[in-house]
Amino acid sequence: MFSQFDTEIPIRPDDIDMNNHVHNTKYLDYVLAARYIQMTENYKMPMDQFADLNYNLVISTSHIDFKRALKVTDKIIVRTQIDSISGAQCKVNFWVLLKSSNKISAEGYIVYTLISLTSGRPVRIPEAIIEVYSV
Amino acid sequence: MFSQFDTEIPIRPDDIDMNNHVHNTKYLDYVLAARYIQMTENYKMPMDQFADLNYNLVISTSHIDFKRALKVTDKIIVRTQIDSISGAQCKVNFWVLLKSSNKISAEGYIVYTLISLTSGRPVRIPEAIIEVYSV
Amino acid sequence: MFSQFDTEIPIRPDDIDMNNHVHNTKYLDYVLAARYIQMTENYKMPMDQFADLNYNLVISTSHIDFKRALKVTDKIIVRTQIDSISGAQCKVNFWVLLKSSNKISAEGYIVYTLISLTSGRPVRIPEAIIEVYSV
Amino acid sequence: MFSQFDTEIPIRPDDIDMNNHVHNTKYLDYVLAARYIQMTENYKMPMDQFADLNYNLVISTSHIDFKRALKVTDKIIVRTQIDSISGAQCKVNFWVLLKSSNKISAEGYIVYTLISLTSGRPVRIPEAIIEVYSV
Repeated sequence: MFSQFDTEIPIRPDDIDMNNHVHNTKYLDYVLAARYIQMTENYKMPMDQFADLNYNLVISTSHIDFKRALKVTDKIIVRTQIDSISGAQCKVNFWVLLKSSNKISAEGYIVYTLISLTSGRPVRIPEAIIEVYSV
Repeated sequence: MFSQFDTEIPIRPDDIDMNNHVHNTKYLDYVLAARYIQMTENYKMPMDQFADLNYNLVISTSHIDFKRALKVTDKIIVRTQIDSISGAQCKVNFWVLLKSSNKISAEGYIVYTLISLTSGRPVRIPEAIIEVYSV
Repeated sequence: MFSQFDTEIPIRPDDIDMNNHVHNTKYLDYVLAARYIQMTENYKMPMDQFADLNYNLVISTSHIDFKRALKVTDKIIVRTQIDSISGAQCKVNFWVLLKSSNKISAEGYIVYTLISLTSGRPVRIPEAIIEVYSV
Repeated sequence: MFSQFDTEIPIRPDDIDMNNHVHNTKYLDYVLAARYIQMTENYKMPMDQFADLNYNLVISTSHIDFKRALKVTDKIIVRTQIDSISGAQCKVNFWVLLKSSNKISAEGYIVYTLISLTSGRPVRIPEAIIEVYSV
C-alpha cells in the first residue's frame, strides 16, 4: 500500500481559457507539478536524481475524468498515490480537489515508464527506487 | 460508421519541454486544435455555432497513450474519428501521426458532453447535431 | 510615489523550455499572476471589479530585459510598482528576483490601458481607481 | 539593409485567454515560431546549427506594442526584419499582421545575444553569421 500526498498548486490567470475556466490540458500540468514537488519533499528523491542514475521517467498514458470546472480564484490540492509498480512501469492515481469543499474537480491516472538513457529502452524499476516509492 | 479526418498541426518551439520533446500536455491541445478546424472544414458546423444554439461542448474524459516522442522539427497529422454517440456524450478517437512515416506518436480518445448553457446540465445530443457528425 | 509589492510565484515544470530554462514568454505570465494577486491582497480591488464597473484593463505595451536564466528549482519573487498614471494609461514597473540572492532575473514594465466595455474605447482612469492604486 | 520575411502562424484554441482573445504572452511565441521557420527557410541556417557551432542565441530584450486584439478565427502573418547587428547582439523588429486586412495587431522588437556554450559569455557575432543574416 502506497501513501497519498497532497500538494497545493496555485492556479495562474494564464491557465484560464476562452470558457473562463482552467483549460483542460492544464490539469495534467498541475499533477506533474505536484509530483515534481512530492518527489523532493515526500519521496526525498528529486527528479534530477533520475537523470543522475542515467534514467528518464516518461509518461506512457494519461487519463483524466473532468468533474467540475475550475475558476481562476479557486484553490486546489493535487493528491497523488502510487497504484501499482510492475516491470518498467509505475501507475499513479491522482485527484484534483477543491480546497474549500474537498470536492473532486478531476481524477485520473498517469502510467510512467522508466527508460535507460543509455539504451533508450524501458528498464525494470529497480528495488532501490521501489523502496523510495514505498514511503 | 463515422468518417476519419486528418489535419496537419504545426509544432511550435514553445511546445518543447525540458526533455527536448513536445510536452505531454500539448498533444491534447493539438487534438483540440484539429477538432476546431475539422468542425468548420469537415463537419461544416463551426464551434461557435454550439454557443449560438445555447450549447457548450465540454470535455468529460481525455485518455492518451504516448508511443513516440516528438521533436520540434517533426511534422504531424492529427487524425480523429467519432467512435460513438450516446445520450449527451460523444466519444472521439484520435491519433497523432508522424507525417513522414505515418507512425503513431500518440493515440487516445476524448469524451465530450453537450451542456445546456441555460441549465448548466447535460442534454441529449439532438438529431440535428448527430446528422452534422454523420458526414 | 507608489508602493512596491512582492509576491512569490512558483515555477512549474511546464514553464521550462528546450534550453532547460524558464521559457522567455512565461516571465510576463508570472508578472500578470503577481499583479492579479496584488490587486486583491494589496490594492483590495480584485480584477473582477473592473468588469463589474464596466471596465477592461488591457495591456498596451510589455517590455522585458532578461538578465539571468531561471531553472525549474529556482524560487522567485515578482516585485511590481506603479510608475505613473496618465489619462487612460498606467505604467507598472516590475522585477523578477531570485529569492535566494535577491538578484534580478528580469526587469521591465507593462503599460495598461483602461477600456470602457460599453464603447470599447480608452477611458481616463477615474479618481476612484487612482486612489485604489495609491496605497 | 536587411530583408523582411513573412510567415503565417496558425492561432490555436489554447492560445485564447479569459478575455476571449489571444493571450498577450502568445505573441512572442508566434514571433519565435516564425523566426525558427525563417532561420531554416529564408536564412538557410536552422537554429540547431547554432548549437553545432557551440553557440546559443538568447533573448536579452523583448518589447511589444499591442494594437488590435486577435480572435481564434483570425489568420496572422508574422513579419520580421533584422534592424541592426552590433557586437554580440542582433536586434530584430517584428510585426504581427492580420492576413485579411494587413492591419497591425502588434509590433515590437527582440534583442538577441550570441552566447558561447563553452564560456557562457556573450561573443561577437562572427562575420559568417552576419553574412547568413544579410540575405
